[in-house]
This record gives sequence, structure tokens and C-alpha cells, in this order.
Amino acid sequence: MGYTAAIAGASGYVGGELLRLLLGHPDIAIGTLTAGGNAGTRLGDHHPHLRPLADRVLAETAIAELAGHDIVFLALPHGHSAAVAAELGDSTLVVDCGADHRLADPDAWTAYYGSEHAGTWPYGLPELPGARERLASTKRIAVPGCFPTSGTLAMFPALAEGLVRPEVVVVAATGTSGAGKALKPHLTASEVMGAVSVYGVGGTHRHTPEFTQNLSAVAGAPVTVSFTPMLVPMPRGILATCSAPLTEGATAQDVRAAYERRFSAEPFVHLLPEGTWPTTAMTLGANTALVQVTVDEHAGRLIAVAAIDNLTKGTAGGAIQSANIALGLPETTGLPLTGVAP
Amino acid sequence: MGYTAAIAGASGYVGGELLRLLLGHPDIAIGTLTAGGNAGTRLGDHHPHLRPLADRVLAETAIAELAGHDIVFLALPHGHSAAVAAELGDSTLVVDCGADHRLADPDAWTAYYGSEHAGTWPYGLPELPGARERLASTKRIAVPGCFPTSGTLAMFPALAEGLVRPEVVVVAATGTSGAGKALKPHLTASEVMGAVSVYGVGGTHRHTPEFTQNLSAVAGAPVTVSFTPMLVPMPRGILATCSAPLTEGATAQDVRAAYERRFSAEPFVHLLPEGTWPTTAMTLGANTALVQVTVDEHAGRLIAVAAIDNLTKGTAGGAIQSANIALGLPETTGLPLTGVAP
Amino acid sequence: MGYTAAIAGASGYVGGELLRLLLGHPDIAIGTLTAGGNAGTRLGDHHPHLRPLADRVLAETAIAELAGHDIVFLALPHGHSAAVAAELGDSTLVVDCGADHRLADPDAWTAYYGSEHAGTWPYGLPELPGARERLASTKRIAVPGCFPTSGTLAMFPALAEGLVRPEVVVVAATGTSGAGKALKPHLTASEVMGAVSVYGVGGTHRHTPEFTQNLSAVAGAPVTVSFTPMLVPMPRGILATCSAPLTEGATAQDVRAAYERRFSAEPFVHLLPEGTWPTTAMTLGANTALVQVTVDEHAGRLIAVAAIDNLTKGTAGGAIQSANIALGLPETTGLPLTGVAP
Amino acid sequence: MGYTAAIAGASGYVGGELLRLLLGHPDIAIGTLTAGGNAGTRLGDHHPHLRPLADRVLAETAIAELAGHDIVFLALPHGHSAAVAAELGDSTLVVDCGADHRLADPDAWTAYYGSEHAGTWPYGLPELPGARERLASTKRIAVPGCFPTSGTLAMFPALAEGLVRPEVVVVAATGTSGAGKALKPHLTASEVMGAVSVYGVGGTHRHTPEFTQNLSAVAGAPVTVSFTPMLVPMPRGILATCSAPLTEGATAQDVRAAYERRFSAEPFVHLLPEGTWPTTAMTLGANTALVQVTVDEHAGRLIAVAAIDNLTKGTAGGAIQSANIALGLPETTGLPLTGVAP
Repeated sequence: MGYTAAIAGASGYVGGELLRLLLGHPDIAIGTLTAGGNAGTRLGDHHPHLRPLADRVLAETAIAELAGHDIVFLALPHGHSAAVAAELGDSTLVVDCGADHRLADPDAWTAYYGSEHAGTWPYGLPELPGARERLASTKRIAVPGCFPTSGTLAMFPALAEGLVRPEVVVVAATGTSGAGKALKPHLTASEVMGAVSVYGVGGTHRHTPEFTQNLSAVAGAPVTVSFTPMLVPMPRGILATCSAPLTEGATAQDVRAAYERRFSAEPFVHLLPEGTWPTTAMTLGANTALVQVTVDEHAGRLIAVAAIDNLTKGTAGGAIQSANIALGLPETTGLPLTGVAP
Repeated sequence: MGYTAAIAGASGYVGGELLRLLLGHPDIAIGTLTAGGNAGTRLGDHHPHLRPLADRVLAETAIAELAGHDIVFLALPHGHSAAVAAELGDSTLVVDCGADHRLADPDAWTAYYGSEHAGTWPYGLPELPGARERLASTKRIAVPGCFPTSGTLAMFPALAEGLVRPEVVVVAATGTSGAGKALKPHLTASEVMGAVSVYGVGGTHRHTPEFTQNLSAVAGAPVTVSFTPMLVPMPRGILATCSAPLTEGATAQDVRAAYERRFSAEPFVHLLPEGTWPTTAMTLGANTALVQVTVDEHAGRLIAVAAIDNLTKGTAGGAIQSANIALGLPETTGLPLTGVAP
Repeated sequence: MGYTAAIAGASGYVGGELLRLLLGHPDIAIGTLTAGGNAGTRLGDHHPHLRPLADRVLAETAIAELAGHDIVFLALPHGHSAAVAAELGDSTLVVDCGADHRLADPDAWTAYYGSEHAGTWPYGLPELPGARERLASTKRIAVPGCFPTSGTLAMFPALAEGLVRPEVVVVAATGTSGAGKALKPHLTASEVMGAVSVYGVGGTHRHTPEFTQNLSAVAGAPVTVSFTPMLVPMPRGILATCSAPLTEGATAQDVRAAYERRFSAEPFVHLLPEGTWPTTAMTLGANTALVQVTVDEHAGRLIAVAAIDNLTKGTAGGAIQSANIALGLPETTGLPLTGVAP
Repeated sequence: MGYTAAIAGASGYVGGELLRLLLGHPDIAIGTLTAGGNAGTRLGDHHPHLRPLADRVLAETAIAELAGHDIVFLALPHGHSAAVAAELGDSTLVVDCGADHRLADPDAWTAYYGSEHAGTWPYGLPELPGARERLASTKRIAVPGCFPTSGTLAMFPALAEGLVRPEVVVVAATGTSGAGKALKPHLTASEVMGAVSVYGVGGTHRHTPEFTQNLSAVAGAPVTVSFTPMLVPMPRGILATCSAPLTEGATAQDVRAAYERRFSAEPFVHLLPEGTWPTTAMTLGANTALVQVTVDEHAGRLIAVAAIDNLTKGTAGGAIQSANIALGLPETTGLPLTGVAP
């Protein structure tokens, strides 16, 4: 156990998933756990599935509690991480599971989040070109959003190699845990079970500028992304169905080759055998992203689909993957390749 | 009870939904019920929710059983309806819930269904331009597929009025009942619950040419449709998320006006108040289609979403709606505007 | 439309189900709809599945709004109905879907509800011995709880005929809509989907004294009821598994005969063919109760199982059934025998 | 990796769960994987969530394939294990996940399974009195059924200490994976989602004699068990609600003390804090069993509830736990205490 980690916001779903994974991490010991309104309560009251930690008591989220750890994972509401990071100083690896430091464009931040931009940290999607180098030398990591993780992985090879025009359409189904534990009428079991809905339609979802930023960077030119999230009756998982018009002359062989090239050496991203399409069930609890791609000759489009667990590869697992890189550990340390099914 | 109806294929899901609706239809009496392998069994063994018909015994699907009714609803596997219709003659209204007579293009039929084309019947989507006239004078109705019903309703106003370019993307989530009662490994409860998957990706789903036909006819020019169906863990319902690039100069006001114009007088299609997005829960068991539309200025796309119950408006309810027209009854006779929720 | 009905508490699940059913009732017109905190909002905001009433605006729950109707259905929190009924006077049929007037024993009321007892009204379970006579001449109806409806129907024939000892065990699975729309952490979709839990264990659930009262009255002697409710991942439905020790000499034939005797003439309670066990899916949206009974020779117990829709036969449908009796209408008027499946 | 294990029946759900757990077991290497009809196919076709084993090819289930391993896990249909074990000889630890060797009474076997009894092996529920001693010295293990695992753990402390009369009632809700992968009409997603049903009512379920055997052995006298299984819409998990009449003089304190005594040192069985009731969500993917117990003074009954994952503690995890004992490894080796939630 070379390192210790504190978790701020341990009573939420992201906090719970960080703890589930860290319980199996050989090099990171679980240190102080903090919460806001739940400070003073037992962890077992919030995460009864984490038996070994049931009697841990949550401390107040405060610098005094978080300081002194090698790593601090932040699972806080927007707008809190910059101040915490400033006080912790550069000796601590700060991994922000929130959105605060994902966007490079202050105007995009303000347009979508309504507050002042807190600055940009290295973006924790190691599979993107150049990302591992940036993460290897940082003490600050911005963990990607769960939707951008799935859709970016599905589409970046095509954009990186100029196989599609920069007009991407993403329709992504998500389980309910992505919305956290807040009590909202449309997230009750009675409303969700047996129903599918869309929300944040027309470019209004906060993950839209993150998609645009990721894919534009890879394409080396502005990419538009039409992103529609869909809420489906399951607790976990994202399935992103993405497409874009093929560029003149791009063939199915080109497409397959590009995806194989990008993913053949990736430990967590698996391009499935041709003809096999991903389901979220293949990734439940695993840090994997399963991808498939095809070409629709008639419609002239490339279609790529990615499945992830929104809490694992989509948040907590992705956070630990990037932290491993920043700590100099093997990138896969403590991260499950195996899901739980059925 | 002016009319009598026989149902061929009464033990399946479509047959069950036809019976549920006809039990509440004031002008159509339920006549003979037939089945293939289930002939000789009680209806209650297959549809225990239809208490008033529990003791009806299923006859063999044969002309002798179906003849003598005013209406025959066919809920049969592909390839059977032409022969049945030929023997029943023109005095019987034949309503085919299968695919046999939907497509006008014999080559498209053969490419997607692998058999010889059986001819084209009037297409039972009354909301399409000119459809009511064609249905009013026919003795043969081709009931649309459930996906094309939802996606066509969502997109045809935009194409009819030239507000989008003819490059449509449809991603549609469906419940499992659309796949019928056949036993398949990927449709067991263990595999479906808690999981989302895609299938028929890349233009290979049989509803693709039906989409193309519908939207091209409305646009008056060839439309390409990239259609991806998605299987979600619910028994009923379709939510179709559709989009296309806006044409130069088309505004959000134009779009709203076009959809209001097309749907304001429709009894079953409801354009929701701005800002409200449909869920399948709003339509469970109802013959309604709920539609919303918006414009994504940044991505330059129109996005339209439609929710239906795949068994009601998507099949059996749509069939009865068209039959009402063909019989000269008020179009809404016996069809529920009210769903069952939560 | 001989009668008009107001509904107090129209924005909740019980209110919505009353409206769904009354939309199909030929003799009761829907009058004023009221709410507490939701007064002033559109009904469509709360029940988007009730398209024909979408634009109705909710009035404040107040006597002035409720007065002047033939019937007032109360779907209010505990403790409000006595005052409302007193002001409405005896010319109005008041149907209380809440618990206030179900229990005859003031001490039991106070023990379980913590307030003063408001008095006892005729109990709206028409299938119980003598109930129809009491309901035919009343202007006040106490609608049973959903669990007692299911379990009482399952067990009362055995107790009425002395076939079991008065020691009943009930384990009843319920969908989430029984808990209403209140926002509670354990009722979010993320917590409910994929999980089963128990609550109110050990006789602490408020429906326990109602069970005891019903079954003791039928048995003519005190009956103990061990009742355990179970929350399962579905929106609607109750399946009550009930058992009790057989009395000496009681045979399987006696049991079958007793249940057939009690239920053969019932319009809504159906004893299934031997060997067929009820599922909640058979009753979704219907006012039916499906019952099966058997004898476990080895364990010496009678086991009876009943399935209902908690919102239909379990609350709103049961309320209308009793109201029909009190109004002198045929008992089945406007109530569906047909469910929605799958 | 001190030991090697072969798995016969690797393409089913139990086989998949054995593999998921063995992938994390430090002392058992995964050897040959065999199947019946699926021999020759890739494991990835059957268990796409087990990425590290995706390319393993399934061998034919035959002695030649299974021989030469230290351990053979059998996940086969009933009636096959005796012959396999005979050929493997006493040098191999044979762990039978099927029912063949669970029952001691040949008549009970024949009555419930319809074939000749194959003999009795040590029963793999280590928490039962004396079980660990028997397992420590055996080369043959009969893995308990999933329902008996849950209900026995819930009730044996009460019976062992004479706190209840020997008349036990068990109503246990299960997810669908307990039924395996066989295609059956009532196990399709359309039929299961949104519905609850019972089956095997009245003592006809095959787990009934196993319950009786377990609890009678602990009580030292014949115990009757009325067992009703319930199918609920979730893939995994069992929640067993059990009760029995309290013996004269038994108090709530006695009960609590007895359960604490039995479970305080158990690594996998957790008696929850008073007032907290188990949900299956607390155990998903974990080898834990969560138990709560209370006394219903009015009904004079003890009620105990246990939650397990039917595939983990209920089958594959329980199998490995017993195998660890038989191998002389620490009992908890390679078995997760942590579940996956939400």
C-alpha cells in the first residue's frame, strides 16, 4: 500500500464506486472519507454493499480532513474543487470527478454552467492521443463526463483519421445512477420503470461542449455534435450510438483498420469481433469500454456504438485509471476487466 | 355491433392487443380466433389478462374459419397474407399487421425479406398526406411497422415542408414485445433486464426501406435514413429520436409552425407544449403518439422525438384506426386516448 | 351522465387512476379536480397519460370546490377526510381512499396512526359477507388498503368456513406506486431496480390491524395475521402469498369447494383453473383479483395467492365499484375486466 | 496458483459465475472449460462480460478433459455427477453445483427428482453446525440450492436454540438467473418485466426436501417447511422471508442473542443492525448473506429475512467457499465481501 487516498463526497454513487474499486486496489489505501450533509453518519447507511467499510464514519468535507493523503478524489457538486485543490497544494494528486476543470473554453463553461471558469486540468481519458503523456506528469486530473467518455471513444478514431465529416450525431442511453442520489420526481422508480425518455435535447446538455472539445481536438478542426441523452430503466450503464457522414472514398476496410489500430493495444477498450454489438450488460462493474463500428453504405454514414458502465469506466474507474498513470503505477492496477452478469 | 372481425394469429402479442382493443369497440364484434401451433388451446392460456375471452378456443388458421366476417385481421408471419386475402375476396376488409404489403418496391422487399414481393396495399398511417383518402375506399390495408410509425410521424412534417435536408438519422428504443413471443436467447429476462443493446445496425433492419419509402414520398425526393434500433428493458413502448440537418434559412419558428399545422387537427398525434419531451409512459396502452421537436442551432439540426406504444398505435391500434376509416366509422371509434401510468 | 364527481387529491397516483377509470364510466361525469401544493397547475403536468384532461387546471382542495357534486372521492393524506365529509353533508356520497375510517377499533387506529380516531365508515370490499348490503345504503365509504384487499380476498373463504386455524401468514409483494409520489431515498429508480426488500416487518405496517379486523370478522373469532410487505421492481401490482394451518380434517376438496362457492358469482374475483397461479401481469389496469388456492399436505397448510393491481382493484377501481353499489348502479359499471399485457 | 480447476458446464450462468470468481482467486488457476451443446464455441459468445477469457474455446464435457485437475466444478443437469466423480477418483476434489448429492433420503430424492438416488456428499453450507469439519476432510462437496442457502441461514439459529416451533413458512423472491439459460415462455423479458408470480406452490418445489433436511438436522427433530418461491423482475438475488411460531417464553432478547452468537464470527453472514432490513442490492456479486430477525409479539412469530446473490453465495461463491475449506485454504480466499450497487 504505497499510497493513501481520501475521498470527498463518499456518500454518493461516485464515492461508493471509488470505494468499491479502491477496496481491490493493491497500492492505494483508503484514508479519510468525507461528506457534506451526511457527515457524522456511518458509511454503511449509504453503501450497504460495501461491507468491509460499513462502520467507517464520514467526516466533514474540509481541508484539514483531506490534507495529508497522497491522493484526494473529489466527488463534489460543481464549483468546489478549485478551492480545495489550491489549499491542498502540489504535493497532493487531486482527481476531480466533477466538471469544473474539463473545459478549456471559459465561455463554454459559463454558457453551460453559469459560473466563472475555474481553469483547465489535464483530461483523464488516457485513450486519447497524447493523453497519457499529459497525465503522467500532472498533479491535477479532470475526470471526463460519463457520456463524453462513451461517445468520444466510439468516434475519435474516425475523426482522427478523417474518415467522417465533422458532423457527429450521438444518441446515448443511460441508467439512472448517472443522475446521482438527488431526489427528483422524474427519477422515482414508479416513473422510470417501464419507460424511456429523452432530456437535454437540442444541445442543451452540459456534456455537449465536452464532446465538441474532445472530437474537435482529435479532428484538428471544429466538429459539431448533436447530442441527445436518453434515460432508460436500468441502474447502471451507457450505450452510445454515434454516427457521422462518411468522407468521400472512405471504405469499410479503412474504418475497421482505423479502429483496430487505435484500440488493439488498449487494455480497457475492446473492439468487438465484427457482427457482435455491445450491450451494457457486458461491462457492468468493469472498467471496460466495448466498441463496434460499421458502415451504412446506403445512408453514407459510419455508425459506432460504445458500451460502458457509467460509474466505472464512466467515472470512478476512469478516475483511478488516470490516477494510476499519474502515480507511475501500471495503468490497469486494481481495475476490473470482468463484469458482473447477468 | 355492425361488423364482425376474425383474428388470425390470436395467440401472439399483436393478436392479444387487437382483442384488448376490440373488447372496447362498440361497432366491431369479435368473431373467430385462429392460431397456428396453438390451435385447439384456450385463449386464457395465452392472454390471461383478457378475462372475458378466457374460455374461447382457438381454431386453426384456415380460410373456412376466417370467411364470413366483415373484417379479418392478420397477425401472421411474413408471406402468408396474400394467399389468405385472395381467397377471402373483395367483400372482406383484410388488415395485414405483417410486412407483406407495405413496400412498393419489389427489389427492396426481396433484398430485406428474401422472398418474392406479394404486392402493395394502401398504407395504414392515416396521418400521412393523402392516406385517409386511400384508406377510405380500400378493402386491403397494410399496417405500418412499429418503428416506421414512430419515426415517420416524428419527421414527416419537416420533410414535407422542406425544413431539413433529406438525410435522416433515427435511433429508436423499443420494448421487448415488438419481438413477439418467439423464444430467443437475447430476449430472456435475465439478458434484457438491466441492459441496453442495439441490433440491425447499419441499415440492415427490415424497417429501413419502409422508413425510406415513407419519408421520400413526403419529401418528393429520395431521403436516406440511417436507422438504429435499440432494445431497452421494458415490455412496451417506442421512443424514436430523429434528426436531420436544417436547410438553409429554416428557423425554429418555421419548424414549430409546420408541426402545429400538421398535427393540430390530429386526434391521436399530440405535439407537446414546448419544453416537454415525450416518454413512453405517457402512451402505454393508448393509441396516441406524442411528439416534440426542437432546433439545435449549434449543430444545425432539427431533432424530433416521438413516443408510442408499439402494440397500440404501433400495430393493433393503428390497424383498427385504419379499419375504422375503411369501414366509414369515425376514425377514433373504440381507440383509447388514455394510457395506463405509472 | 347521471352523476358528477369531484376528486380531491387529483395530482397523485390514486387521483390519476380514479380519473383514468372515470373517463370510461358512462354514468359519472368528472367535475372539479383539486390538489394541495399542486393547485393552480395543469393536470397534464402530473398525468401526461390522461390526454383528454391535459388542460384541466387543479383547484385548491376546499369545501367550496368540492360541494355541489354527487360524489366526492378523497385521495388525501390521513386525517383530512372527517372534516371534509362533515361539511359536505349527507347528500353527497363521500368515498375516502385514505385510511381514516377503515378501522373500527379506536385503539388500533391510535396505535398505528398516532392520532385520534375519526370514526368508522362502511368498508368498501363488496366481496366480503354482508358488505354489499351495507354499501347499498351508505353515503360514506372507507376504501380498503391495497394489501388488505389482496390478502383478505385470498384468505376469507378459508376462514369463513373454518378450514384453517386463525393464524395467518401474509407475505405480499408490491410495486412502487403504492407508496405514492412522495420523494424518498429508497424509492428512487436506482435503488429499486434490480432489488427486492422488505419493510414494516413484525406487525408494524399500518395495514396489519386492517387485515386482522377483516379476517377476524369473517372467522367470528380473533385471527392473528403476520404480515410482511415486500417491495419489488415494478410500478404496479400486488401479489399476496398467504397461508394458515389447516384445521383437522379439512381436505383439498373442501378448500376448492369453499373458494368456488365464494367466488363463482363474483364479477371481479376469479378463481383460476387448478394448477394456474396468478401473476400481477394478468391484472394490470383491470379491476380484477385473480386467486388460486392449494393445500400443502406435508406442511399441513392452506396456501392462497391473490394478484391485483394496487391502483385499480386495490384502490381506485375498488372505490368506484363500491360507489356504483351506493349509487344503485350495476356494480361493474365503467370498470375494466381486461388488463394491459405484456 | 497452487491448484488448477476444470469447469464442466462453463457456458451456463453458474459456470460463468464460477469463472468470474476464479479470475480473482489467487490460489486456483482456471483449467479446462467444457460444455455440452456449446462445445467448440468461444467462451466470449456465452459470457461477454468475462473479457480475459473471451477467446477460450469450450471442450466437450468428458472425463479425458476434466481429469488431471486438482478440482472439478460440475455445473451440469441433474443425474450426471455421480458417474463423472466415479471416474475422476479420490485424488480430485469434485464440487457438484447440481442437486444430485444434497439429499440424504433416497425416497425424498426419487419423489422430487424422479430418478434413482446417487448418494449423499458433504453439504456445502459451512455456517451450519459441524459443516466445516465435514468439509475439511472431503473430496466431494454437494453445493446447496440457492433457496435453501438463504432460508436455512435465516432460520437455523432459531431452530438450533429451540426458539421457534418446528413449523416454518418461507416465501422467497428470486431473480431470473436462478432458472438458468433454458428458453421458456414464462422467462422471456416481456413476461417477466413488470410482473411478479409464484410457482412450485404447496411443497412441490424441489428445494422443499432440502429445506426440511437442513432445518430438521439443526432442530434435532422433524421440521415442516411450507416453501413458496416467487419470481420477481430482476436478474439476480434472493430475498427469503421466513417465519415460525415462537416457543412459549422465547423473548426478543433471546432471539437477538441467538443470532448474534451464531453469526458474529462468520465471515460472510452479517446480522444487520437492529431496524435495518436486507435488500438483495446489498449483496449483488458478493458472497455475503445479510440477515435480520425480529419478533412479532401480536402474531407470536419470529420473522427472519435473508438476502443473498443466488449465483454467488447461493451457488458459485458458496461452492468456492466450501472448496477453500476442503483444500485447506483460508475460507474467504478469492471471495468478494463487496457488492456492486446501485
